Amino acid sequence: MAAISEAEQRELIAVAAELADAARQATLLHFRAPGLDAENKETDRFDPVTVADRLSEQRMREILARRRPQDGILGEEMGRTAGSSGLTWVLDPIDGTRSYLAGTPTWGVLISVADETGPVYGLIDQPYIGERFEGGFGRAEMVGPHWRRALKTRSARPLSECILMSTFPEVGTPEEGAAFRRLVPQCRLTRYGTDCYAYALIAAGHIDLVVEAGLQAYDVQAPIAVIEAAGGIVTDWQGRPAPQGGRILAAANAAVHAAALAVLNG
Amino acid sequence: MAAISEAEQRELIAVAAELADAARQATLLHFRAPGLDAENKETDRFDPVTVADRLSEQRMREILARRRPQDGILGEEMGRTAGSSGLTWVLDPIDGTRSYLAGTPTWGVLISVADETGPVYGLIDQPYIGERFEGGFGRAEMVGPHWRRALKTRSARPLSECILMSTFPEVGTPEEGAAFRRLVPQCRLTRYGTDCYAYALIAAGHIDLVVEAGLQAYDVQAPIAVIEAAGGIVTDWQGRPAPQGGRILAAANAAVHAAALAVLNG
Repeated sequence: MAAISEAEQRELIAVAAELADAARQATLLHFRAPGLDAENKETDRFDPVTVADRLSEQRMREILARRRPQDGILGEEMGRTAGSSGLTWVLDPIDGTRSYLAGTPTWGVLISVADETGPVYGLIDQPYIGERFEGGFGRAEMVGPHWRRALKTRSARPLSECILMSTFPEVGTPEEGAAFRRLVPQCRLTRYGTDCYAYALIAAGHIDLVVEAGLQAYDVQAPIAVIEAAGGIVTDWQGRPAPQGGRILAAANAAVHAAALAVLNG
Repeated sequence: MAAISEAEQRELIAVAAELADAARQATLLHFRAPGLDAENKETDRFDPVTVADRLSEQRMREILARRRPQDGILGEEMGRTAGSSGLTWVLDPIDGTRSYLAGTPTWGVLISVADETGPVYGLIDQPYIGERFEGGFGRAEMVGPHWRRALKTRSARPLSECILMSTFPEVGTPEEGAAFRRLVPQCRLTRYGTDCYAYALIAAGHIDLVVEAGLQAYDVQAPIAVIEAAGGIVTDWQGRPAPQGGRILAAANAAVHAAALAVLNG
């Protein structure tokens, strides 16, 4: 595909911001609302898809239909819509539905744009806190309730000084879990329960590693764009590009990435 | 001790708010700041006491010396100061220092006032999000970035519909961990990594249970005040009052509390 012109990059950035604003409004309509609880009693035990999840994706799709009808869409809730431009919007309207259900503020909205090579621009938005982490097309920036800052990953350090995150202590299959548990005691500190927020924390330079398994394309493409724009690396557990998800290793820098990769495969 | 007059209750509430405002400013001065990382390299692996932790308690103590010199103080960082009023301020300037270090917004400032029976008023403040959960002296309320709401715990439901939280999957001693792990599969969903924020989520009616071990008085007194004001129950794992910490079971209501207690001791 031909390079994306600067004018089109600006347009894509503006559309992404409009999508994120709409998703923020849709998700906050139901977050911690009385009745969310009751609605979710009916849903599947391990994937509590909320009314908000669908509403959030629907609102984003309405904007894309109006502003970027030529682009494809891959959304967690409503699947794949073909496009003609060679660009695809990859949307996770609520990443971390269990976190959303429990009221913790570490779920997020993931929005990215991919060409045939993978994500070229993305953002991670946390509506309740009012934080947005954005990367690609020359941008790497976060804005939150207290400040606007450039995103820059941490410098290299030994694993024994690294902070590792994963959403659940039971990572993936038994084999995947065993690999993860080899890494835990090598690191200074391991924290759980962070969903997509952990990727934002790598990009912002606060932690060093995120290891997860069983991810989907829509879980990982926005984090890839944001982390790579901030100087970090996201691959699978063999060190290959991972825009389709699966086993994910996100690292603040090449040295930490290599050290973690060696332990996961050790 | 004689009952606390309404006028004194109003004064204590106002002082607590002043303490929380000061702690919010002190903790945000260093949260996610460049250099926090370097300072903490020197500290103990399992209790990274930050500059912010000490500054936060120092600022609160300065206010108490001016406004409530007659009261005692028990602070995480600076220990116990005797008073003459029969009231003690119990302060945790940063509950969840590991969370603070990692940049996650689930740490908090815990402030409470105790008489000889235990906490009579308390608050849980999350400075980065700008949320405060308050309970006691007839108040049970939260204020955050999007709304001000009464605090009210969830209604009773079977454990299989309950959301359980704990800061770490490795809860306490091997025996304590085994008891906790009996409870996990009984619940609908278990989430980790939330520090004091989990107690706020019980009070606000979003989750049902928090189980932890090895807590100190300053970890638990503010949560006790807030949760009890909202209709919930906090005890040790034998169902006894637990103002001194130790093994803590916090529940949204009596039925869920009894069910969890039975499993922990099963």
